[in-house]
Amino acid sequence: MTSSSQSEASIGIFDSGIGGLTVLRALKEHLPQESFLYLGDTARLPYGTKSSDTIRRYLQQNLAFMTRRGVKALVVACNTASSVLTSNSHAGFPVFGVVEPGARAAARVTRNGKVGVLGTSATVASGAYPQALQKLNQELEIIQTPCPLLVPLVEEGWEEDPITRDVLRRYLEVPMAQGVDTLILGCTHYPVLKPVIQDLVGNEVALVDSAEEIAAQLKTDLETGTISRGHGRAIRIMTTDTSLAFQTVGARILQPYVVNDWHWADIEEDKGK
Amino acid sequence: MTSSSQSEASIGIFDSGIGGLTVLRALKEHLPQESFLYLGDTARLPYGTKSSDTIRRYLQQNLAFMTRRGVKALVVACNTASSVLTSNSHAGFPVFGVVEPGARAAARVTRNGKVGVLGTSATVASGAYPQALQKLNQELEIIQTPCPLLVPLVEEGWEEDPITRDVLRRYLEVPMAQGVDTLILGCTHYPVLKPVIQDLVGNEVALVDSAEEIAAQLKTDLETGTISRGHGRAIRIMTTDTSLAFQTVGARILQPYVVNDWHWADIEEDKGK
Repeated sequence: MTSSSQSEASIGIFDSGIGGLTVLRALKEHLPQESFLYLGDTARLPYGTKSSDTIRRYLQQNLAFMTRRGVKALVVACNTASSVLTSNSHAGFPVFGVVEPGARAAARVTRNGKVGVLGTSATVASGAYPQALQKLNQELEIIQTPCPLLVPLVEEGWEEDPITRDVLRRYLEVPMAQGVDTLILGCTHYPVLKPVIQDLVGNEVALVDSAEEIAAQLKTDLETGTISRGHGRAIRIMTTDTSLAFQTVGARILQPYVVNDWHWADIEEDKGK
Repeated sequence: MTSSSQSEASIGIFDSGIGGLTVLRALKEHLPQESFLYLGDTARLPYGTKSSDTIRRYLQQNLAFMTRRGVKALVVACNTASSVLTSNSHAGFPVFGVVEPGARAAARVTRNGKVGVLGTSATVASGAYPQALQKLNQELEIIQTPCPLLVPLVEEGWEEDPITRDVLRRYLEVPMAQGVDTLILGCTHYPVLKPVIQDLVGNEVALVDSAEEIAAQLKTDLETGTISRGHGRAIRIMTTDTSLAFQTVGARILQPYVVNDWHWADIEEDKGK
């Protein structure tokens, strides 16, 4: 791909659903000159309860799909899919997971070396965060907690409900008893619950999400020319399910940014042949 | 298909996940001489939050898959998939949804004509139960409640947890205030919550699930020869995700029956070409 056509290309973002729009919004904030192409595999979500074989198969289909769309870089916003990523490039473009940036930020901010990880069952089972954290600092103590009910609670719109607070209190019991001073929000849905979580754990515990860290990395790559700068500003979104509910929630998450184009994508028919 | 080869064929059961094993167990209890082939689309579950287009597309793939496996009858145990069924036969074999049998049982047992329906968001949005109920009796008053958190709570194994009780109390508030005397458990996962629901609504409210009704229908069809009797007794299960967690939970649901064969199926590669 020539650098002129690359400069017209978008930065791709992939997620199992629409939670990754929190990442898109953070990137757009830091990189206003870029255009973005977002793929949400809403027809097969959630990934977090499925086996690594299945997640790996879906990830390959999504990478092939994004390759054919000519993206110049890809952010795998889904923690579960990031946890099975084996390479930081694909078909000539760089691929960013959310696990390493999140681990980097957590290793930087912890003072007592005790880091908690909240994630889906699959992300926790993969051990991706402990591996990434221990590569940065072998001394870190890591307490992981699978939180399978948080995504459905957010999707139910109960983020400020007392029931969600009860569920969170249950999930936070062990990491708090262990004395963590840093908590990685290891799922793109969890930043929506940040106020409640912060309230439950107190201000001494730092909450880490990966979006800011990835935005900083991409900004550096654009400035150094590792990735060509763009001159578009469009936000295009493709989802594999046609439900309108995703569009409503998605538009709310993205505010103040506006979606230029939202349409349905058939990943299964379009797979890498 | 000749009647001799048909008599060797299995009764197929399809569900988005493993909740439909509650239906398989009920059928096995009533039809011990039959062999069963169960397909759980665990790689793409849940269906309940997805659009009718997507559900219809998945259903077609599943029907084609079961047709190539030569089943002699098919029970669509998934309420969400049943709600988009348009025909009661496919490729020469009868297809049973769970919506009509459930509606029939509810219309029979209600005394005050007020029937509640608990279901996934997609099942409720489809209006399949109200349509089926009103076809049976125009006078019925129907109160539907979407309960998106119940499936994840059951899958978390919290069926006897106080949090699940709180969530159920919330969901049951409106139908109970309206005075329903009959509640359709419109999702294959919900029978697991029967004791808690019965406790919350009291013994005057009848809980209806479809499995018994379908078993009775199939028994009649086998006795009258509409469907040939089998002489196998095997239970074969195929799931589209490879996670072992499904096998553990599945074996528990099926007790005292034992699975003879459990393996992975690739519906997407195997689709009707």
